[in-house]
Amino acid sequence: MARKTLALAVLIAGFTAASALAQQPPRIVSPEILPDGRVTFRLNAPKAGDVILTGEFLEGNRRLEKGADGIWSVTVGPVEPEIYHYNFTIDGVRTIDPANPQLKTGSTASTITSVLEVKGASPAFYDAQPVPHGDIRTHWYHSKSLGSVRRLTVYTPPGYDENRSSRYPALYLFHGANADENAWYRLGRANLILDNLIAAGQITRFVVVMPFGYGVPPGQAQAENTAKFGTDLIQDVIPFIQSRYRVFTDRGQRAIVGLSMGGGQALNLGLNNLDLFSYVGGFSAAIGNAANHARTFAKLTSNVEEANGKLKLLWVGCGTEDSLFAPNQAFSDFLKTSGVTHTFHRTPGAHTWSVWRQYLREVAPKLFPQT
Amino acid sequence: MARKTLALAVLIAGFTAASALAQQPPRIVSPEILPDGRVTFRLNAPKAGDVILTGEFLEGNRRLEKGADGIWSVTVGPVEPEIYHYNFTIDGVRTIDPANPQLKTGSTASTITSVLEVKGASPAFYDAQPVPHGDIRTHWYHSKSLGSVRRLTVYTPPGYDENRSSRYPALYLFHGANADENAWYRLGRANLILDNLIAAGQITRFVVVMPFGYGVPPGQAQAENTAKFGTDLIQDVIPFIQSRYRVFTDRGQRAIVGLSMGGGQALNLGLNNLDLFSYVGGFSAAIGNAANHARTFAKLTSNVEEANGKLKLLWVGCGTEDSLFAPNQAFSDFLKTSGVTHTFHRTPGAHTWSVWRQYLREVAPKLFPQT
Repeated sequence: MARKTLALAVLIAGFTAASALAQQPPRIVSPEILPDGRVTFRLNAPKAGDVILTGEFLEGNRRLEKGADGIWSVTVGPVEPEIYHYNFTIDGVRTIDPANPQLKTGSTASTITSVLEVKGASPAFYDAQPVPHGDIRTHWYHSKSLGSVRRLTVYTPPGYDENRSSRYPALYLFHGANADENAWYRLGRANLILDNLIAAGQITRFVVVMPFGYGVPPGQAQAENTAKFGTDLIQDVIPFIQSRYRVFTDRGQRAIVGLSMGGGQALNLGLNNLDLFSYVGGFSAAIGNAANHARTFAKLTSNVEEANGKLKLLWVGCGTEDSLFAPNQAFSDFLKTSGVTHTFHRTPGAHTWSVWRQYLREVAPKLFPQT
Repeated sequence: MARKTLALAVLIAGFTAASALAQQPPRIVSPEILPDGRVTFRLNAPKAGDVILTGEFLEGNRRLEKGADGIWSVTVGPVEPEIYHYNFTIDGVRTIDPANPQLKTGSTASTITSVLEVKGASPAFYDAQPVPHGDIRTHWYHSKSLGSVRRLTVYTPPGYDENRSSRYPALYLFHGANADENAWYRLGRANLILDNLIAAGQITRFVVVMPFGYGVPPGQAQAENTAKFGTDLIQDVIPFIQSRYRVFTDRGQRAIVGLSMGGGQALNLGLNNLDLFSYVGGFSAAIGNAANHARTFAKLTSNVEEANGKLKLLWVGCGTEDSLFAPNQAFSDFLKTSGVTHTFHRTPGAHTWSVWRQYLREVAPKLFPQT
């Protein structure tokens, strides 16, 4: 499969970020995507004794070799078209590729990586294409329940501003640990995925609400965080959204989905609040210990018939290479044993955005189907 | 002056980013703001031979000292309350502080730094405060003139959505070299500065349009970039904004301002298009060689009386420690010699966001005064 260089691909997308590399060569070009799809990484570090590359496109890691000019390099692949995260570890210090402007950031330092995007011969489902585009809106809102000003990101589908008599369903979509309210659009490309699905006529237009997933600082107990985050969601975020956006306010037009930590939040908050949500999804969810399910989901299992009637979708997906696969399988078993109708979606893949972008693409058409 | 720790300050702002550091101590806390306002930086690098700190809060740079545990550290300051950028250089490799989640990113790798925010005893003019907040909207728009999908960021003032019969003036606000369309709100805090000024009754409410400043890849000739960027601005961005936002469409309600590279763009495009703009500003503008001014601004100087009648504000500001101070002084001299009425604002400061945040705060009240 033919591949464009990173520089060209980025320029075409209109974010000329890395294209400087092609136009005004700095000393170091890294990463460089070769015509055959292999990728060369470079680092100018004459004094370093050891440079290691770790990345989602590698099994294990790779050692860079030092050239006579003090520039370290390694070529890997071919690498399949995808968006990947990677790091350099220089003499034991895990850091970024200092020649690459594309970074993944979040709410803790542990999440910082460089980003490698390999383009295919044709646009991916998450690429910006010449179709009508929705907008991303960032709000600073006052959370009365948490007593602070917080940020919130919202996607509105193309036509939202123009079609002022239309109302829309709402998907509440949560990020994972160490990430933030921008992760689903910056890393997940949620807006572009939905723009493309809308252009293809494959989904209903809906608003996506992406709150900041921490009610307590990152690293504290997940149960406490879910409780505080959930209070903010229900008492502050949903009312804020319903006061500012033309969204339907009935449970039939509300979905709750999240990934990893946010998957645990979505399943927990969704299944305990079926008066608010009718579509519930967990992507590689941090669903917790199976020993706690009976207590955590007591409300759900106390009246399974009613729950099954209310749930238009309960979707649990996880990649088999994900360390959370076994807990997700166990959660599905718990649901099955309890008689709760659901989809358990077992796929290849690990705990990566490539899985979650794909899951959003698969789940979006199942939300709010037009009758 | 009392100072909060970074962790606490960030938590209060609702972006719990660094607060993990305080709650679940990782091996390394960096930066740590001490009660007396000094700041300790740390790096775990047992194999490193040399670690240097460079930062906007330093004259020159500082060498970290290696502890017996392999952790390097240095304490600097006291550091005045402000938002600063800094880097570590580890054995000659310029990189970020790997323990700090707060990063400055942009469109080239050279712009990547870590961020240190020192809070004062009371909120700064750029802090999120409990006042009504405007929104930030990100658009993906098709530039017909450049043949690509580009991003564009817009600030709408508090009340924009609710007051649907109101129309607003528009400020077109440009970022500097190596930055992007998010710089003015992520680094410049433009939205929070304006929210606070609005709450204090000091400015008219207006929409701020922040386009991506590169029409050619970063590093190419500035004149070519200004021409292409200007074509996109006039043929694509302004029409897009006027089709999507309730903005006035007459020149009297349009301002054009930028910093550094964007300052050069704003002065060049603004003063050559007085049929479109009536307020023009350059912050630490990359205004180019004085030998070219006569040609670049021939249109302006061909009818100075008309230009002075049209210009409601021409504001040129630069810090005396900025390497662009002399060119800005020379530009002011050129304007003076040519008889063009303007304000030359000479301030302390270098080529930093602390200067540009302050300039926005000072210029905003001069835009669109209500009669």
